[in-house]
Amino acid sequence: MAKILIIYYSETGNTKKMAELIAEGIKEEKVDVVIKNVEDTQAKELLEYDGIIIGSPTYYGLPAYQIKKLLDESVAFHGSLEGKIGGAFSSSANIGGGNETTIMAILQAMLIHGMVVKGNSKGDHYGPVSIGKPDSRVERQSKAYGRMIAQLVKKLK
Amino acid sequence: MAKILIIYYSETGNTKKMAELIAEGIKEEKVDVVIKNVEDTQAKELLEYDGIIIGSPTYYGLPAYQIKKLLDESVAFHGSLEGKIGGAFSSSANIGGGNETTIMAILQAMLIHGMVVKGNSKGDHYGPVSIGKPDSRVERQSKAYGRMIAQLVKKLK
Amino acid sequence: MAKILIIYYSETGNTKKMAELIAEGIKEEKVDVVIKNVEDTQAKELLEYDGIIIGSPTYYGLPAYQIKKLLDESVAFHGSLEGKIGGAFSSSANIGGGNETTIMAILQAMLIHGMVVKGNSKGDHYGPVSIGKPDSRVERQSKAYGRMIAQLVKKLK
Amino acid sequence: MAKILIIYYSETGNTKKMAELIAEGIKEEKVDVVIKNVEDTQAKELLEYDGIIIGSPTYYGLPAYQIKKLLDESVAFHGSLEGKIGGAFSSSANIGGGNETTIMAILQAMLIHGMVVKGNSKGDHYGPVSIGKPDSRVERQSKAYGRMIAQLVKKLK
Repeated sequence: MAKILIIYYSETGNTKKMAELIAEGIKEEKVDVVIKNVEDTQAKELLEYDGIIIGSPTYYGLPAYQIKKLLDESVAFHGSLEGKIGGAFSSSANIGGGNETTIMAILQAMLIHGMVVKGNSKGDHYGPVSIGKPDSRVERQSKAYGRMIAQLVKKLK
Repeated sequence: MAKILIIYYSETGNTKKMAELIAEGIKEEKVDVVIKNVEDTQAKELLEYDGIIIGSPTYYGLPAYQIKKLLDESVAFHGSLEGKIGGAFSSSANIGGGNETTIMAILQAMLIHGMVVKGNSKGDHYGPVSIGKPDSRVERQSKAYGRMIAQLVKKLK
Repeated sequence: MAKILIIYYSETGNTKKMAELIAEGIKEEKVDVVIKNVEDTQAKELLEYDGIIIGSPTYYGLPAYQIKKLLDESVAFHGSLEGKIGGAFSSSANIGGGNETTIMAILQAMLIHGMVVKGNSKGDHYGPVSIGKPDSRVERQSKAYGRMIAQLVKKLK
Repeated sequence: MAKILIIYYSETGNTKKMAELIAEGIKEEKVDVVIKNVEDTQAKELLEYDGIIIGSPTYYGLPAYQIKKLLDESVAFHGSLEGKIGGAFSSSANIGGGNETTIMAILQAMLIHGMVVKGNSKGDHYGPVSIGKPDSRVERQSKAYGRMIAQLVKKLK
């Protein structure tokens, strides 16, 4: 059975909440999903999943260093994530505050792992973005993103 | 006297409105400003100004091709914009819809011209963003951006 | 049968040469491939293919405006490319000259179309890059990229 | 007197070597320069300099997490770097391997701090890039970058 791992870093709880919303979308597609705080995650755990979705607050237009640390450590098995599905999301204080570049930074790292990523032609194109606390728009976007990634994981598995 | 050129492409009028708001901020700093539609602009006109600010709707996460056409044509005097001040802004249909990457795309082109660009530690960090029609937040951000760029132009001239 | 379209813009012939090398890799995978100059391409033709690979010279860190024009025109059928496979490549005068940002710009536009893109864990991670005339390294990277995209198209079709 | 801080992270010594080359260019302009390993740098030290140049190996298309950690910690005095000059450089294993996106990631963080950044119309446009061990091309680019940033620091101070 297909399995997706959602990794997040969260200080205020906003990014964690987005992780939970994305997980709901994934479950609607009958795909297994595990949510983990990045600080409790070993890089080698990435190997066990068909899809990996990473979320971070927007810190200086990039993911939190804790996320980057995990990505740096994942070099130990560089090449082994080739072909897995990736996704990214971010919570941010402001519109135009770096949320898109944070998501793109995570997706770039995934591309360098040889992973497969997918945008969304509707709404938050690169991945879900929350400005402040997740509202109903973010809820809708996040669940739809979870469903979309889950569908792609099932298709490629 | 310092002079700034604002170039925009606009279909709905939202990007044009942002250009006008930025111009107001520039005027508050007693710096000359000219606003031009990109379709009425010759690349060589860029040479006459100390600062160049370019605005575009967000089309597929990048500036409209009319903006890119002007940038491509500016290669005719590559090197001559070295040290001028640059800035960028974008209007967009959606949050997370590509507005930041549109602004960064314009700023990247300016860096390749050897231009000087500046972010804003408050609000729209890379440059002003409007989600839909410019509202009071966008008005505030755009005027502040105009003042900031005008101050930098005066300082560097 | 799976079909891939390679669209390029080329002034010196370097980008065109890369298109041909990528096509060789695609053919090795027994996938149909058509190469078209962007100036002879209608946006609606994108609809007919399972995979779309776009190549451009690096002009100010972004694709040539002719490529962006096609992308802008593709808004007429926004949503219809959802789930297709995308890829990008670029030729450039210099190392560090904007080739990666050119490729990422094309991939971002593809993500906004809801397309699926894939990086490469070996070599040119975001897509093939040629510094000047394609050499044996570029030949190897381009053919491998063609094979990789073709395999993904077959898998997802 | 104007002062510039160069911060680097280096495992193989390539990024450190680039830091030293950039420092040579800065000294040619009679500007004070201090080179520090990021692991020996406190975020508050950034406040003492007119210019800050940050270099990192290319790890998954982004700066090493140690660099990001420093940037994250700099939020403690967010706003206080407004108007300072910034620059970035990267060493990388491969052409097209993420070196440009690493530099742009650092520059984005600097823009969010309200810093002033400048590209180079010749050569490595966003900032110096070394593919592998710094060679004579990298030496030339790095020294020229040091001179350029030093000149801008003197002009803006």
